[in-house]
Amino acid sequence: MSGPIMSQSQIVNVQFGETVKIVEPVNLYGCSIGSDCFIGPFVEIQRSVLIGERNKIQSHSFICSLVTIGNDNFIGHGVMFINDLFDSGRPAGGDKSKWKATLIGDYVSIGSNATILPVSICSYSVIGAGSVVTKDITVPGVYAGNPAKLIRKLIK
Amino acid sequence: MSGPIMSQSQIVNVQFGETVKIVEPVNLYGCSIGSDCFIGPFVEIQRSVLIGERNKIQSHSFICSLVTIGNDNFIGHGVMFINDLFDSGRPAGGDKSKWKATLIGDYVSIGSNATILPVSICSYSVIGAGSVVTKDITVPGVYAGNPAKLIRKLIK
Amino acid sequence: MSGPIMSQSQIVNVQFGETVKIVEPVNLYGCSIGSDCFIGPFVEIQRSVLIGERNKIQSHSFICSLVTIGNDNFIGHGVMFINDLFDSGRPAGGDKSKWKATLIGDYVSIGSNATILPVSICSYSVIGAGSVVTKDITVPGVYAGNPAKLIRKLIK
Repeated sequence: MSGPIMSQSQIVNVQFGETVKIVEPVNLYGCSIGSDCFIGPFVEIQRSVLIGERNKIQSHSFICSLVTIGNDNFIGHGVMFINDLFDSGRPAGGDKSKWKATLIGDYVSIGSNATILPVSICSYSVIGAGSVVTKDITVPGVYAGNPAKLIRKLIK
Repeated sequence: MSGPIMSQSQIVNVQFGETVKIVEPVNLYGCSIGSDCFIGPFVEIQRSVLIGERNKIQSHSFICSLVTIGNDNFIGHGVMFINDLFDSGRPAGGDKSKWKATLIGDYVSIGSNATILPVSICSYSVIGAGSVVTKDITVPGVYAGNPAKLIRKLIK
Repeated sequence: MSGPIMSQSQIVNVQFGETVKIVEPVNLYGCSIGSDCFIGPFVEIQRSVLIGERNKIQSHSFICSLVTIGNDNFIGHGVMFINDLFDSGRPAGGDKSKWKATLIGDYVSIGSNATILPVSICSYSVIGAGSVVTKDITVPGVYAGNPAKLIRKLIK
């Protein structure tokens, strides 16, 4: 019996802006991270993710392919993004035509341990810690719960 | 004052099948992982866990002792398994007679950030991201929420 | 274009009691950890956190500034603490006057993937796995759900 095939968490083929700060270990590959972002430890960011400027991505978070994040957002600790809804009752596997996209605007704050299904979240929204976001958010406000619901509107 | 007693996340006493792929750092000890599995970064798998073939265990997940996983399953990112229900109001600690087992069938898909209490989940089930599974799942279907409830049946 | 500014997860300026056990990688800075504690892998503990004696902090957990933990507690896997409620609709950022404190008593058991907002949790309480604790807990009992509610009282 042969041993397992090992690889290391690493930073590969990532396009960085200026003065991005990273605390290793992280696993970042094929993504773009804008200027003045912070990436905490134990973070994974997948291929083709686009992250704008001045975003904080805190420890333990996972950002999957097809996620686009604007500027000035705060992604808490242990936040998980989803691109596969298992619509056929199974993972899409390599069939990327079944993956769905997520779009995060600007000045969005996502609390720790939140789970973000493939949705759009408009600018200036707040997602409570531990929430599960299952639908698009088009009105700036505070959303919380599983599934996340509007708690109060924010005037902008 | 003496310093802390340090050890490193590592792979110790693990029985591997063929062509298992692992992205370090991981902490795997005393478990069995079947052929053609994938183990993502920042994963911990404890003593006596049995994992069959062709399973994907994604980043940030934790699989505790007394969990048995069949074949062809997808375990998302940040999925946590439980074996101690604190039934006496406290952790069982070293008293393994109080730990409870979990059994995952085949072709089960577990969404990211899900929490799996000690239950059985039948083959072909789908667990939504962010769900908390508190009861046995005996009918193939899509389950979601906290606690997880049947959303729709899957015909098999 | 310059490359990112890299740092490593590490243990810096931590005050340890006797026989503390740690599984690296961890990111611990500026905190105090009492005797006979266990700190699992992939854990981050921030500046000024005070942790008493005989606590187990399991893998993947994050403990933020302004958290104080007594003695003999069990913090499960993937537990996230919060100190910023985004009260103004935005992260407090460097304005620590807006951060709120959390106080965990003694003999508290917190299940895996739980999310703990800035609250007090009294001694001998049990928090179910996957719960989101949004209010002070002043009566010893078992609490679960999102938001966490009393499931049953524990006589002490």
